[in-house]
Amino acid sequence: MLPPLDLTVDVVTLTEQLVDIESVSRDEKAIADAVEEALSALAHLEVSRHGNTVVARTDLARGERVVIAGHLDTVPVNDNLPSRREGDLLHGLGTCDMKAGDAVILKLAATIPEPTRDVTYILYEAEEIEAAYNGLHLLAQSHPELLVADFAILMEPSDGVVEAGCQGTMRVDVHTAGTRAHSARSWLGDNAIHKAGEILARLGTYEARTPDIDGLTYHEGLNAVYVRGGVAGNVIPDECVVGVNFRYAPDRSEAEAEAFVRSFFEGYDVRVTDLAPGALPGLDVPAAKAFVETVGGRVNPKFGWTDVARFTALGVPAVNFGPGDPSLAHRRDEHVPIAQIVECERHLRAWLGGAA
Amino acid sequence: MLPPLDLTVDVVTLTEQLVDIESVSRDEKAIADAVEEALSALAHLEVSRHGNTVVARTDLARGERVVIAGHLDTVPVNDNLPSRREGDLLHGLGTCDMKAGDAVILKLAATIPEPTRDVTYILYEAEEIEAAYNGLHLLAQSHPELLVADFAILMEPSDGVVEAGCQGTMRVDVHTAGTRAHSARSWLGDNAIHKAGEILARLGTYEARTPDIDGLTYHEGLNAVYVRGGVAGNVIPDECVVGVNFRYAPDRSEAEAEAFVRSFFEGYDVRVTDLAPGALPGLDVPAAKAFVETVGGRVNPKFGWTDVARFTALGVPAVNFGPGDPSLAHRRDEHVPIAQIVECERHLRAWLGGAA
Repeated sequence: MLPPLDLTVDVVTLTEQLVDIESVSRDEKAIADAVEEALSALAHLEVSRHGNTVVARTDLARGERVVIAGHLDTVPVNDNLPSRREGDLLHGLGTCDMKAGDAVILKLAATIPEPTRDVTYILYEAEEIEAAYNGLHLLAQSHPELLVADFAILMEPSDGVVEAGCQGTMRVDVHTAGTRAHSARSWLGDNAIHKAGEILARLGTYEARTPDIDGLTYHEGLNAVYVRGGVAGNVIPDECVVGVNFRYAPDRSEAEAEAFVRSFFEGYDVRVTDLAPGALPGLDVPAAKAFVETVGGRVNPKFGWTDVARFTALGVPAVNFGPGDPSLAHRRDEHVPIAQIVECERHLRAWLGGAA
Repeated sequence: MLPPLDLTVDVVTLTEQLVDIESVSRDEKAIADAVEEALSALAHLEVSRHGNTVVARTDLARGERVVIAGHLDTVPVNDNLPSRREGDLLHGLGTCDMKAGDAVILKLAATIPEPTRDVTYILYEAEEIEAAYNGLHLLAQSHPELLVADFAILMEPSDGVVEAGCQGTMRVDVHTAGTRAHSARSWLGDNAIHKAGEILARLGTYEARTPDIDGLTYHEGLNAVYVRGGVAGNVIPDECVVGVNFRYAPDRSEAEAEAFVRSFFEGYDVRVTDLAPGALPGLDVPAAKAFVETVGGRVNPKFGWTDVARFTALGVPAVNFGPGDPSLAHRRDEHVPIAQIVECERHLRAWLGGAA
């Protein structure tokens, strides 16, 4: 039995407690139990449990409702538990991605009984693995009403700066075909790998689009992420596949992204294997404007795909805002600056009208 | 216990008997036992056994000695045993590659007690797999004196036409390197797969050399036989490898072949993974000339690498000459024209001065 979570401690200590509950994707029961138990003790929240996802809501009939969400799972342990404080930093698996953000959520939930905006706090399972397990995805299917809001904040690490929208991602396999032959009589065959050279050459000529959207500069990318071909060391290969990942700015729809890629690889057999839409920054709604002002007005574009796109798909503008450098996520030496956790809590507390 | 081989039957029936003794590489004991037993019964031959390789020699102090060799092993069974006669064809695993040739060897050995040239008959193991197991290779190391000869015939399928010499083969891995990055921020990385495009483009410009050697036209080939690259679907890859097979005419040495390939891929990291020399046709020695005349004067160049190169390396000119279409080797529907087996035996019998 784990000791219960203590929501009266400071946000950094609470981060340590959360980090020390191991919660690799698909193994989030212990942490979800602890979170559910701690939140259920708070009379001002209506708590519900969905698998290993916990939802806690205020219901104050405010004119505005916001979602603040964080995932409870981590990538696999890599000899980086338990947590360890060292000077200004807190080290350990999940410190950055994203239990510091979860700790901020829990502190806000526990200590602001009457926020100026109604809040739906969501602590969810399985963000680090296939979408089929993703707690937000499952919630959107089973209880879409719980995701209804004017604005959402996803507490993914963003170095404490608002990252708005996100780019879409698409994967295609570009195939070439040829004819097998023994390599000792290669002129009887037709080499499919040689034909892939032109695909790679075309990728080499790609120039990235960097559109400005709501004052943010996005940056697209079109890259081979794998290439496979070959039958045996003495056989002219009859097939080659170049796997390509297109990261596209949120001013393109999925259909437009696909049309671009198909046109780029015109003449080739292009098969879509994965396609997820981007999310527009959506900074023009009042709740978003107020939030950006509260945190100092700085906004960066989000390049990577995150769950903010799930909110956008539901019509809820969403941003990433959390402590920690995103480039440290999934690394063995993952850590978070303690000051960023504190700062992040302070900003959100101010935005929700909580006592300092 | 298998029934003993009967060397008094006709060469086609003997082929059937050999085919019906399963002898996938590394499992040649049964067939080698049968061959050794049958040959040991012949007083005019001196028989020795080396692993599952059997050597039988006449010792008539002729002015000339020739080797006639065939391998006893086959590629794995593919629902193509036992043998089956259908019209003019004999079907089954090993009919073409190369038990029809083995049957010819055994018939010659059994029925020509006093050949006009001394003969070393070799029936050897493990030709279809790694060189380390190859019976000829092992014999060259343990008993090189048994391979001493003026001329050698390897009874690999050659459609009953003399195929002289063989091309060399070389494999290299051509590497490119880059820098990993998340594909959402691809401009922070350096894509190693894109760089491989220029390697493939260069291969596309390759023009094959087709040198004439001793009146035979060889045909070189430089081909990618595999390509591998990729870390994950969201990572800019930092490495890509193009595997290239160079088949080169026997007027180039191994060192010259390597120099050509290194120069062709100048600027790239080229690593040699395999290198085997070709074999010059060597048709100017008297035994070779006499043989070619006997079989009608037609000679083709051999493109594929075969064990003739092992004889060349020992200073023994060698050719391929055997029944069966080489392009049927290793196929499930492998078969041999019955008339070719008979014809092949007839030619060799005439050359060795045996009674018709």
